[in-house]
Amino acid sequence: MISIAVLGYGTVGSGVVKVIETNQEKIDKKAGLPIRVKYVLDLRDFPGDPIQDKIVHDYNVILNDPEVKIVVEVMGGLKPAYEFTRAALEAGKSVCTSNKELVAEHGSELLALAREKNVNYLFEASCGGGIPVIRPINSSLTAEDIDEVSGILNGTTNYILTEMTEKGSAFEDVLKEAQDLGYAERNPEADVEGYDACRKIAILSSLAFGKTVRYEDIYTEGITKITPSDISFAKKFDMSIKLLASGHKVTEDGKEDKYYAMVAPFMIRRGHPLFNVNGVFNAVFIHGNMLGDSMFYGSGAGSLPTASAVVGDVIDAVRHISRTLFVFWDPEKLELSDHKTAMRPFFIRVPLDKKDEAMRLFNASDAVTCEEVPGEAAMLTSIMSEEEFEKKFNEAGYVLSRIRINQ
Amino acid sequence: MISIAVLGYGTVGSGVVKVIETNQEKIDKKAGLPIRVKYVLDLRDFPGDPIQDKIVHDYNVILNDPEVKIVVEVMGGLKPAYEFTRAALEAGKSVCTSNKELVAEHGSELLALAREKNVNYLFEASCGGGIPVIRPINSSLTAEDIDEVSGILNGTTNYILTEMTEKGSAFEDVLKEAQDLGYAERNPEADVEGYDACRKIAILSSLAFGKTVRYEDIYTEGITKITPSDISFAKKFDMSIKLLASGHKVTEDGKEDKYYAMVAPFMIRRGHPLFNVNGVFNAVFIHGNMLGDSMFYGSGAGSLPTASAVVGDVIDAVRHISRTLFVFWDPEKLELSDHKTAMRPFFIRVPLDKKDEAMRLFNASDAVTCEEVPGEAAMLTSIMSEEEFEKKFNEAGYVLSRIRINQ
Repeated sequence: MISIAVLGYGTVGSGVVKVIETNQEKIDKKAGLPIRVKYVLDLRDFPGDPIQDKIVHDYNVILNDPEVKIVVEVMGGLKPAYEFTRAALEAGKSVCTSNKELVAEHGSELLALAREKNVNYLFEASCGGGIPVIRPINSSLTAEDIDEVSGILNGTTNYILTEMTEKGSAFEDVLKEAQDLGYAERNPEADVEGYDACRKIAILSSLAFGKTVRYEDIYTEGITKITPSDISFAKKFDMSIKLLASGHKVTEDGKEDKYYAMVAPFMIRRGHPLFNVNGVFNAVFIHGNMLGDSMFYGSGAGSLPTASAVVGDVIDAVRHISRTLFVFWDPEKLELSDHKTAMRPFFIRVPLDKKDEAMRLFNASDAVTCEEVPGEAAMLTSIMSEEEFEKKFNEAGYVLSRIRINQ
Repeated sequence: MISIAVLGYGTVGSGVVKVIETNQEKIDKKAGLPIRVKYVLDLRDFPGDPIQDKIVHDYNVILNDPEVKIVVEVMGGLKPAYEFTRAALEAGKSVCTSNKELVAEHGSELLALAREKNVNYLFEASCGGGIPVIRPINSSLTAEDIDEVSGILNGTTNYILTEMTEKGSAFEDVLKEAQDLGYAERNPEADVEGYDACRKIAILSSLAFGKTVRYEDIYTEGITKITPSDISFAKKFDMSIKLLASGHKVTEDGKEDKYYAMVAPFMIRRGHPLFNVNGVFNAVFIHGNMLGDSMFYGSGAGSLPTASAVVGDVIDAVRHISRTLFVFWDPEKLELSDHKTAMRPFFIRVPLDKKDEAMRLFNASDAVTCEEVPGEAAMLTSIMSEEEFEKKFNEAGYVLSRIRINQ
């Protein structure tokens, strides 16, 4: 039998207990040993909840119990999760987590500590909730030279953008609705400003490219400026607007590889696998030099899907007691190129009377008008650097809105 | 250093050599040891090809070379692949394969033999080409009770159906075109009659449900009867027609679980993750009781994508020398329920003058007509068993076409 301890009885923590209870028989069979929750660490008590008997308030009870081989850290945040994780690994216990902040901040360090102690630090649930994506990168796509990992990694913003697209509503209205439905936090900043997606793409890019991508280095733009007018025009171009979190490698003959990472709203063409990822669903697109396009799709959040990924990690940790799984994430920092040098086309909206002028200035094609947005035209610029675009944007002075186009 | 031998220098075999050559540095790093192709077994010689020096015609050279730790079986077919695989495993060598026929026929037996010999039998490339799906089922979705695995698992038929949908062409014309382009075999039976997809869903269902699903037990229908008229009406219903290979578990309170497996053309509603999987792409949809919907998408065939999955397996085999990976595939046969008891709605086309009669008989709704197909109506029946549907179908005598609807 393997005893585990769950740190934090919140959304994910209670999900972990529920998943293990519900699928106990299958889980024990897959792990090769019965898995039992021995402790749940929480500041609160849960009188009446069957878990109450397992509640402890002192982490040392868990740390000092040699029966506990695996610690499930689902508290979120850096403090005290970081210290708790280090202490568990130091004590020779594997740690499974959904904590993207901690993994993005200290991932490579904690992996190294786990390796040193012959245990595992696993974090499938930190990106894309229940979608298997981290293990496929680490264990399946190992023969690939990955040059792109791009994802719709935040369910709240994807829900908001989908609702705006389907109902034509304004950002603020849909956000309020999402808050009432519990799909968005009362303080929605981490989601709508892209900070959550930024942590996740820092993790995925680090694993895809093998060196540490620091989330602070990633240019991040949220969805608060997207308007119904943008969406009406996007439909005209048969594209959808998604908050995309991307890591790219750009290879040119005779030059050193360049790496880019960014979180921002992008327009995505129909036909791209991410075009149709709607509602609270998440998806991760990966391009490799041998495989070409691939995509992983599923529930990016929610108690049970996220918990399912955490418990999948627990099972893997049981299967690999005293054997550290291979993960390539070098502590060395990956130097990202300035996002202003990235080349791409842009979507712009301009006043109708500036249409011809804008088409010349931005070397644009496909100018369209749209019934729902009278007095405006929209167009797609030629491919240019962000810097060149910004220069023209400032020079023009009349551009009403601009959205990057995913290529 | 790890020496490997490749059995068969055909499409996949040459891809394996190419993938290892191209991504050598990354592959060696991921494996933890340099991987080198020492032998390529083929009946033919390849004068002028750099591989010629490694060509052997006698399998015993490989079997008797203790340096060869991993055998890559990419010959296809049962003979001599089965004997060669057994002999390699018996000799303590791991085997990595893309051979769906062999895995579907002898998978659980070869896994047991591998376990007995402390080596691995890996077959990620047997289903869905380069898409990671077998390892995610075995190692990631382990906390799930999977109740559905459904896939678009054959690139040729998906290409044909996509072309028919986009161009309105007839099956025979697109097939001929696909043959000229090399997307379809000169003898296309295995693809268009669904036999290829049948082998693949037998494997995936066995892994998802843990017992052996025999491909001979799977009701299999190909795409040869699909017409442009079906497709025109499918568009009216905002659905796409796909050759779907599915395994289902049906759970009812107080009753034993029932299992179904089937390969047949299905109509798929917009909004379902498989709706938009077009061209030669493959995708596997998995539903679990905790995770809900998930999907894995990518290149289902082709030399390099398939080879990439094979080499991913080789890397995993290197990482697990003398340690057998966990795979749950019991040799015990999974008894499938008679497909005639499966419940679903159907799409039917009838002569226009039979519309009202058919709507009553099939308890149908949403009858539509379609400009491209004058003189006909199409409708969706209520949910009924295949058996009941068949009875009504025979009773009516005027139904021009019927396609199952995916729910």
